[in-house]
Amino acid sequence: MTTAPVDVESARRDYAALVDRGLSLDITRGKPSPRQLDLADGLLALPGDVRKAEDGTDVRNYGGLKGLPELRRIFAGPLQVPAEQLLAAGNSSLELMHDSIVQAFLSKLPGAERRWADEPSVKFLCPVPGYDRHFALAERFGIELIQVPLTETGPDMEVVERLVAEDAAVKGIWCVPKYSNPTGVTYSDDTVRRLATMTTAAPDFRIFWDNAYAVHHLTEDEAPLADLLALATEAGNADRVFVFGSTSKVTYAGGGVGFFGASEANLAWWTGLIGKRTIGPDKVNQLRHAQFLRDEDGVREHMRKHAELIGPKFAAVDEILTKELGESGLASWTKPTGGYFISLTVPSGTAKEVVRLAKEAGIALTPAGATHPYGDDPEDAVIRIAPTYPELAEVEEAIRGLAVCVRLAAATKK
Amino acid sequence: MTTAPVDVESARRDYAALVDRGLSLDITRGKPSPRQLDLADGLLALPGDVRKAEDGTDVRNYGGLKGLPELRRIFAGPLQVPAEQLLAAGNSSLELMHDSIVQAFLSKLPGAERRWADEPSVKFLCPVPGYDRHFALAERFGIELIQVPLTETGPDMEVVERLVAEDAAVKGIWCVPKYSNPTGVTYSDDTVRRLATMTTAAPDFRIFWDNAYAVHHLTEDEAPLADLLALATEAGNADRVFVFGSTSKVTYAGGGVGFFGASEANLAWWTGLIGKRTIGPDKVNQLRHAQFLRDEDGVREHMRKHAELIGPKFAAVDEILTKELGESGLASWTKPTGGYFISLTVPSGTAKEVVRLAKEAGIALTPAGATHPYGDDPEDAVIRIAPTYPELAEVEEAIRGLAVCVRLAAATKK
Repeated sequence: MTTAPVDVESARRDYAALVDRGLSLDITRGKPSPRQLDLADGLLALPGDVRKAEDGTDVRNYGGLKGLPELRRIFAGPLQVPAEQLLAAGNSSLELMHDSIVQAFLSKLPGAERRWADEPSVKFLCPVPGYDRHFALAERFGIELIQVPLTETGPDMEVVERLVAEDAAVKGIWCVPKYSNPTGVTYSDDTVRRLATMTTAAPDFRIFWDNAYAVHHLTEDEAPLADLLALATEAGNADRVFVFGSTSKVTYAGGGVGFFGASEANLAWWTGLIGKRTIGPDKVNQLRHAQFLRDEDGVREHMRKHAELIGPKFAAVDEILTKELGESGLASWTKPTGGYFISLTVPSGTAKEVVRLAKEAGIALTPAGATHPYGDDPEDAVIRIAPTYPELAEVEEAIRGLAVCVRLAAATKK
Repeated sequence: MTTAPVDVESARRDYAALVDRGLSLDITRGKPSPRQLDLADGLLALPGDVRKAEDGTDVRNYGGLKGLPELRRIFAGPLQVPAEQLLAAGNSSLELMHDSIVQAFLSKLPGAERRWADEPSVKFLCPVPGYDRHFALAERFGIELIQVPLTETGPDMEVVERLVAEDAAVKGIWCVPKYSNPTGVTYSDDTVRRLATMTTAAPDFRIFWDNAYAVHHLTEDEAPLADLLALATEAGNADRVFVFGSTSKVTYAGGGVGFFGASEANLAWWTGLIGKRTIGPDKVNQLRHAQFLRDEDGVREHMRKHAELIGPKFAAVDEILTKELGESGLASWTKPTGGYFISLTVPSGTAKEVVRLAKEAGIALTPAGATHPYGDDPEDAVIRIAPTYPELAEVEEAIRGLAVCVRLAAATKK
């Protein structure tokens, strides 16, 4: 990035004026806005007078560890997992990722030589910038996190292929393959194919494929994603893939349904263990979702309404950053066509300072470093912008303020 | 038990006649019947047009790890945990028990010297007869299960006190303190006090207090239960207690809400770890439950309707067993005033045979031995009867058939 010199005095003046406005804005988390949630309010009076699933199951009683077939069928296409290999579970995909790791620590995965708890060390590859909750979850179990650069086409596969081939302690990789958190990148076909076919030293290596934004397009131009599970199965690596997804950002965040997809062997392992934990998921909520979303087209139609609400917010971020910083050469940012985030890159060594300045001015940003394992962005340059929750006018105001902070941090950088 | 001689030929004739009827009855699991579930159908169109909890939280969005205060308040009394120490979680208490054990294996409990995963062995006391899912859950993690006799007043406290005092590997005890599964016993005040105050060799000993039937009375005569958490807190053992409960048999089985109650230190430990797993429970379902149940009186009123439906089934079991086996001296059974089960004791060495004979005659019973860890009832004498799910006429028919099997098994016992 070529950086034009910034006039310190004018930057200070602009910042003082910003602070004087006494803002209170929050662009920290990828939460749907109340208007987005309103889109799903048809759920609030469902399932109405229906008590039975299509197969006659009384959804109000125990049972059905795999979840309702009609809901699994709706998400089989979007999540690229055959319906019979896709489980509908509780209210969160994060907990399914957590539980996969827990079960792998406490019971041998298909293909494993031993439980992860009995391994001298367990390492996960983390494409960066990435999702802080993924990192926190793995850290909590003492998993060593190794950064891998995330490029325009997905993780740097040269690095991934080398690391998984040479070190049997590398047991997993975190991936948000479509509209990645926070850059918005979608993995290229070549990246997906290489992930599916690469040679791993660990016989129990797993790709944690968090397809959180599978249907979360901002434009009519839906980013295509190659089918990892099919490619891995074709290559004889079916057990390598754990697919996760949820309706948290389709219907309600916390009141939705999470999904887990995998090979037959992985599913047998999973249901065998999880069957000790639960007698089954909340099928009433699953029925409600199947009624409301109807089918894959119903999901697409519903997601268009989300795009109408949040598309203008993404556009505003790009527009304002272009206007305020475009010619300065101080920053670059991503222009996602889906997902929930924009990644802003500021001059090295200033991201923390930008976040601090913004906070002082009443603009809450995700902590700098959160996009990297252990909160450590070695360049101190990446800031995650989450524009969905606030109203459009607030997003605009926050981003204008953010630009002021970027200029001041650059001008005063030691 | 004094056993009168049974006439083998008449027993065989009765059994042959039973088989000829070609029954297909199931009294295996403690499931609510469809009519019981109908009682909660007010839930199906809730929360209607309400989107906010009493504190203004939008229940449709992320957050609120502890669950909705209004729902926690309703169950604070019944579960004997102050509302601020009671969490409302997902759709099952079994999963909360599972997760407590998982977290104890992978992270040091308050008071612990090390994680359970780093202990040479972990043992749990199991009052028997007890609940098969408790045993299966602990077995799955390699916990050694030690049988303790369950008496009319709860676990034999002489045995419990000796075992917990002499062996630091004893880390827990499974308890269903009210209307116990399967005997229906409620622990006496003295038992609860001794559990709260006893000396344990393990500094991280936990009582898994599964108060599954806290409000599940069959008569107006509600069994009183001493307040374990209060007594333990008074004795300086606050951290010893994990309380579990759920609405699975209040509203819907699988579509309800689970609860976890404990000391402040335990809760801080729990939320710190579980906060990596989830951004919060399904608050929409919690709001729906708070609206529908209203308050503690609302719960009591609702449970009376359950009692009206299942009370006659319990009465029928007692009546038929009395008529068919009362004078034979072949069997004894419990007469619970709450809960979901009746425990039938048949002559030693015949329980498995009774279950086999019943199965051949089209009457499904919980496998003999299921009431004991590792499925091993050393006396082979205990059979669990679950009368709630089938219609009354089916329960009657099943119990009449069961009595025939008890007589034949006794008559042909080698």
